[in-house]
Amino acid sequence: MRIRVINPNTTAAMTALIGESARLVAAPGTIVDAVNPAMGPASIESHYDEALSVPGLLAEIAKGEAEGVDGYVIACFGDPGLDAARELARGPVIGIAEAAMQSASHLGRRFSVVTTLARTAGRAWELAERYGMERFCANVHACEIPVLELEDPKARRVIADACREAVAADGSDAVVLGCAGMADLCEFLTDEVGVPVVDGVAAATLTVQSLVTMKLRKSGRGEFAAPLPKTYVGLLADFGIENKEAQA
Amino acid sequence: MRIRVINPNTTAAMTALIGESARLVAAPGTIVDAVNPAMGPASIESHYDEALSVPGLLAEIAKGEAEGVDGYVIACFGDPGLDAARELARGPVIGIAEAAMQSASHLGRRFSVVTTLARTAGRAWELAERYGMERFCANVHACEIPVLELEDPKARRVIADACREAVAADGSDAVVLGCAGMADLCEFLTDEVGVPVVDGVAAATLTVQSLVTMKLRKSGRGEFAAPLPKTYVGLLADFGIENKEAQA
Amino acid sequence: MRIRVINPNTTAAMTALIGESARLVAAPGTIVDAVNPAMGPASIESHYDEALSVPGLLAEIAKGEAEGVDGYVIACFGDPGLDAARELARGPVIGIAEAAMQSASHLGRRFSVVTTLARTAGRAWELAERYGMERFCANVHACEIPVLELEDPKARRVIADACREAVAADGSDAVVLGCAGMADLCEFLTDEVGVPVVDGVAAATLTVQSLVTMKLRKSGRGEFAAPLPKTYVGLLADFGIENKEAQA
Amino acid sequence: MRIRVINPNTTAAMTALIGESARLVAAPGTIVDAVNPAMGPASIESHYDEALSVPGLLAEIAKGEAEGVDGYVIACFGDPGLDAARELARGPVIGIAEAAMQSASHLGRRFSVVTTLARTAGRAWELAERYGMERFCANVHACEIPVLELEDPKARRVIADACREAVAADGSDAVVLGCAGMADLCEFLTDEVGVPVVDGVAAATLTVQSLVTMKLRKSGRGEFAAPLPKTYVGLLADFGIENKEAQA
Amino acid sequence: MRIRVINPNTTAAMTALIGESARLVAAPGTIVDAVNPAMGPASIESHYDEALSVPGLLAEIAKGEAEGVDGYVIACFGDPGLDAARELARGPVIGIAEAAMQSASHLGRRFSVVTTLARTAGRAWELAERYGMERFCANVHACEIPVLELEDPKARRVIADACREAVAADGSDAVVLGCAGMADLCEFLTDEVGVPVVDGVAAATLTVQSLVTMKLRKSGRGEFAAPLPKTYVGLLADFGIENKEAQA
Amino acid sequence: MRIRVINPNTTAAMTALIGESARLVAAPGTIVDAVNPAMGPASIESHYDEALSVPGLLAEIAKGEAEGVDGYVIACFGDPGLDAARELARGPVIGIAEAAMQSASHLGRRFSVVTTLARTAGRAWELAERYGMERFCANVHACEIPVLELEDPKARRVIADACREAVAADGSDAVVLGCAGMADLCEFLTDEVGVPVVDGVAAATLTVQSLVTMKLRKSGRGEFAAPLPKTYVGLLADFGIENKEAQA
Repeated sequence: MRIRVINPNTTAAMTALIGESARLVAAPGTIVDAVNPAMGPASIESHYDEALSVPGLLAEIAKGEAEGVDGYVIACFGDPGLDAARELARGPVIGIAEAAMQSASHLGRRFSVVTTLARTAGRAWELAERYGMERFCANVHACEIPVLELEDPKARRVIADACREAVAADGSDAVVLGCAGMADLCEFLTDEVGVPVVDGVAAATLTVQSLVTMKLRKSGRGEFAAPLPKTYVGLLADFGIENKEAQA
Repeated sequence: MRIRVINPNTTAAMTALIGESARLVAAPGTIVDAVNPAMGPASIESHYDEALSVPGLLAEIAKGEAEGVDGYVIACFGDPGLDAARELARGPVIGIAEAAMQSASHLGRRFSVVTTLARTAGRAWELAERYGMERFCANVHACEIPVLELEDPKARRVIADACREAVAADGSDAVVLGCAGMADLCEFLTDEVGVPVVDGVAAATLTVQSLVTMKLRKSGRGEFAAPLPKTYVGLLADFGIENKEAQA
Repeated sequence: MRIRVINPNTTAAMTALIGESARLVAAPGTIVDAVNPAMGPASIESHYDEALSVPGLLAEIAKGEAEGVDGYVIACFGDPGLDAARELARGPVIGIAEAAMQSASHLGRRFSVVTTLARTAGRAWELAERYGMERFCANVHACEIPVLELEDPKARRVIADACREAVAADGSDAVVLGCAGMADLCEFLTDEVGVPVVDGVAAATLTVQSLVTMKLRKSGRGEFAAPLPKTYVGLLADFGIENKEAQA
Repeated sequence: MRIRVINPNTTAAMTALIGESARLVAAPGTIVDAVNPAMGPASIESHYDEALSVPGLLAEIAKGEAEGVDGYVIACFGDPGLDAARELARGPVIGIAEAAMQSASHLGRRFSVVTTLARTAGRAWELAERYGMERFCANVHACEIPVLELEDPKARRVIADACREAVAADGSDAVVLGCAGMADLCEFLTDEVGVPVVDGVAAATLTVQSLVTMKLRKSGRGEFAAPLPKTYVGLLADFGIENKEAQA
Repeated sequence: MRIRVINPNTTAAMTALIGESARLVAAPGTIVDAVNPAMGPASIESHYDEALSVPGLLAEIAKGEAEGVDGYVIACFGDPGLDAARELARGPVIGIAEAAMQSASHLGRRFSVVTTLARTAGRAWELAERYGMERFCANVHACEIPVLELEDPKARRVIADACREAVAADGSDAVVLGCAGMADLCEFLTDEVGVPVVDGVAAATLTVQSLVTMKLRKSGRGEFAAPLPKTYVGLLADFGIENKEAQA
Repeated sequence: MRIRVINPNTTAAMTALIGESARLVAAPGTIVDAVNPAMGPASIESHYDEALSVPGLLAEIAKGEAEGVDGYVIACFGDPGLDAARELARGPVIGIAEAAMQSASHLGRRFSVVTTLARTAGRAWELAERYGMERFCANVHACEIPVLELEDPKARRVIADACREAVAADGSDAVVLGCAGMADLCEFLTDEVGVPVVDGVAAATLTVQSLVTMKLRKSGRGEFAAPLPKTYVGLLADFGIENKEAQA
């Protein structure tokens, strides 16, 4: 089984970190690739960044389909492009917010999300609602560390404090990490905070692996059928071509 | 006051039709431009098409900001890129699904949506929820006419039948047209169906006009503040540059 | 086009203020009358007051219908008598809570309501739910200034403070003013608070104007059809007569 | 203990029928009066009628307060004036829709409402939501018999058929009768339909009796405190006076 | 009429206290028994305790059915075994959380629940949702006194403080007591706290009495029909037999 | 890693079938035991059966804890005893309804549930709500085959028809099987119905495996902490003892 974990931003160091976190939990027979798009923003911290990460992400899905990949993880907590990716792929596509929230829903009554910048909290709530996880989400907290500074040695301390304060304020049973760039802090934070801390990269990788094991993939008709063949022009002219391939 | 109506697909004939519908309702002092992106799909009938219409749409917003446009309409019933556009623009940005549903909410207890292809119904429901309009939406019905065939003379008859059946099945008080390409059918359909029929292009143009008249625009901080300056690479490298301008 | 703005309380000074706020935003061709009922309470600060403002309000609607008025604004934040008025009127009737909340929903993720007395907050929440705006409403705050003391020069300072505290506590993107008597403070408060402040009188006037422009009015059948002819007795005997006229 | 059952319309025959239904279930020590207002509509079949029934209803509450009545039933399925009445009364005030739906919620997973005219169904849904009973309400069905024709001997057959069809269509466990004028049909319908049929007049009378027995009445502060003293003018000038008395 | 109040824990002193509270409010003709199971936990303070209280509770229902009991109260705020009991009994079965929350919903806009241990708050929220009472529930507060220490003379002071703080924090109109063991404190607390305080034992007893008076009982078919005859083995082998009797 | 799959009914043949389905999907290093309780009903088709299956289920969890089991599946679509089991177990406990619905939520917009008897549909809806999956659940359909007759060769045809009709009626993207006894039909039904069919036994086994792999288990405090030590009497006296062990 081959799972492709797509970091939707264009920062290779973060892609490497994400790949490691995914491989740590994958079963022996599962091959995990980590890739990032050739176009788009260096980090995703706004609706604008998110929207512009999607074409590159979809190009990676199209490439994966050509290579026979079995399933995909979208490794950004905004789960950008999830629906479009599901139309394009034959196998499962799972976002890390989706998988992390579902995993945390098994650990108690409610979880707190700890994310990077406060301006992304609205999106996290939107996803919680979409996945039916709003009832499990006590609140969304920001540590105000930009995505590309998460690897700074001081960051982990700030994040641990944010997690502890979130759990105390919310009376929650678990923490969901609100950024793929925090994936490697999961064990450290679990020890520091005293409640389970969920990393979406691991959770999504295992969700894809489970769905592929059960041979579960979208039906070929309806809302998530392959996109209709159609002319694309300008910078995105090539996307029309990928589209026709996906149909074949 | 200058309002820009953006047709997010790349079909110029549809842009012209949309512009006419918007100008029909605008107040004397309001200048309405209708434009479409230089890149992207010829029509939008899937999540994939929608996602790929957004970069071109955002480029039009950025251009509008440079030209001092006061507000924008996104003239596709999926309201693609709405949040990203709101970050980028100083004035209001309104989607036609948003405006049409809100207008219809004043006309009775519930409305029916009549859209093009059934595969887009899920997105319509998603938007209804997001705008708080789910409680007013009786159901979403498809007439199964592709967007680019709406101008076929036979289409208006099929759509009228779909509207009539929708109202009968739902016991609804109004119809919301689920595609910008139906904007010119509004009056014909109102006569045929016997309940008010709402076109989102007109509704959104008037909503923007009202917000600009009231001098209401997003606050400069928080979730919808201008996107952070950031490097963009590959095909989308230019979007980093637009971004910095939006900040200035 | 003729729009009638009805202040449902019987205080003429407040009616004048409301009329001015409405006229400030109306388009050149739109005539705006401001009226108040001949019977009922001097101000509306309870469910009791609200219920007893409705007969007078309905009498004004009936009079407007006889005079060919195109649409109505109900200028009290409890939106009293809205459904009854919609049955009676041929054109649109819009409440200021309804319009203000819808307008604010375009300005960010959530708004705060700042109202007069805390005892009216429950009604504001009820309306937010009814209009589908609950998800946009962060909280309802009271400044504890009675309606008829809003024009006191000290009031505007207290209200500005309440708005600022509301925005800080809620992390909201906009403020909705919870009383028609605050309509003239809108610009002052926007400057003071630093986020957009929405006045429902202006918003409702423009919503009515937009609906009339689009020729959108309730369908003639179903829940909002004209009330059935019926005998009314006692003090309200005349209301049976108005009723028959509405049917004609 | 003295309970006053108020029929909010002005038809004495219906008041008598309602009084009998209430007295049938009251405990030995409970005195039940049935009254109707001196002003307002002969029957309530629209939002307009409902709004105009409220002043007369409130006058009855004020009279009851002067006479030391312990609690009140509002015997119309629209529960008109409920919040205003609660401000005015010291003891409990219960609407028949409220009580009937709560009683039916104990009898199975979902109930069907069978009401008079279809145009009142929207109000029934609104009340179901308000009371938290929406989740128990399978659907609202109309038998299209006007309120004042319910006593026609043919009506009971039509209503029985409507109940049976409602239960079959909804797969529901109980029926809630949607009009006080159906109170005397309860036993007949239970036999005919084969599921429990709930009459709100009986249910509300017993709910008031229970609350009075438990000495439960609203707190004297907050939203439901007595209305503030205030000038009322015109036809309703007397209502200002009643108001002051309620405060004393 | 004979009502059986079942204390689902096995502590006889608490059963006696509960019986007294129920008898205080029952009508003259109503006989109230208070019983507790012969097996299960001494107090209920976890999901585990609750689950294990149910077999003994169901045995009491089966016994009551054999003796012709008309209706039952489940006197533990987790309302354990309610659905199963409803299948088994011919007459109404009401939980004290269910009845207390419904009663409190008539007293204002929102109530606060004050319960024993914080670990039971999740269950209280779950029940609030199930009964449609979530919208009336401002919050659930714990006084952290174990069930079997509620009779300690110091407990009533701690509980009074918790109620007062709950009302202040929530701005609520009433308090719902979150444990049958607090039933005797109801009057004392109402005086102390200044808002109505609702005891579920009294409320549920009166709800059962009302339903029996109205001859309302579940329909004999569907989800709450008698359980199907079926083999039970091991410690619970006898429950198969009770089952068959219930069918007869 | 050792996962215990508990069939909560006492029918050994069904336990064997369930064990096979679980082992089919488990990773190489995962040991799967399938067990059933020593007491309780032969099949679970009512709230009564469900409630009485729980003590035996909890005894199996206690035994598993003593043996060092890493996680548990509750293999009945009512997910009986889930919360109590979570208190008792140190590792994850997952119900098959929970896991099946979550898995199906990734496959499209909505799924249909196809269950055994119609009387269990209410419970399925209740669980859908609890897990946040209500928004994904189009409807619950019954094939009216009792649990213990699912292995009849004719049953699979009836179930296939029910699935096909459910998908057609609901326009759904997937089917969730509403009984552990259907686990072996999953592949057959996927072929027959043309949309993915989800078996909860497989889904729950993989969810437990994933959570154990991520080292995610409930926090030791709060609602799901081990049950408090406490006296249990009568037939269930031994459960007090198990309790103390769980604490150690």
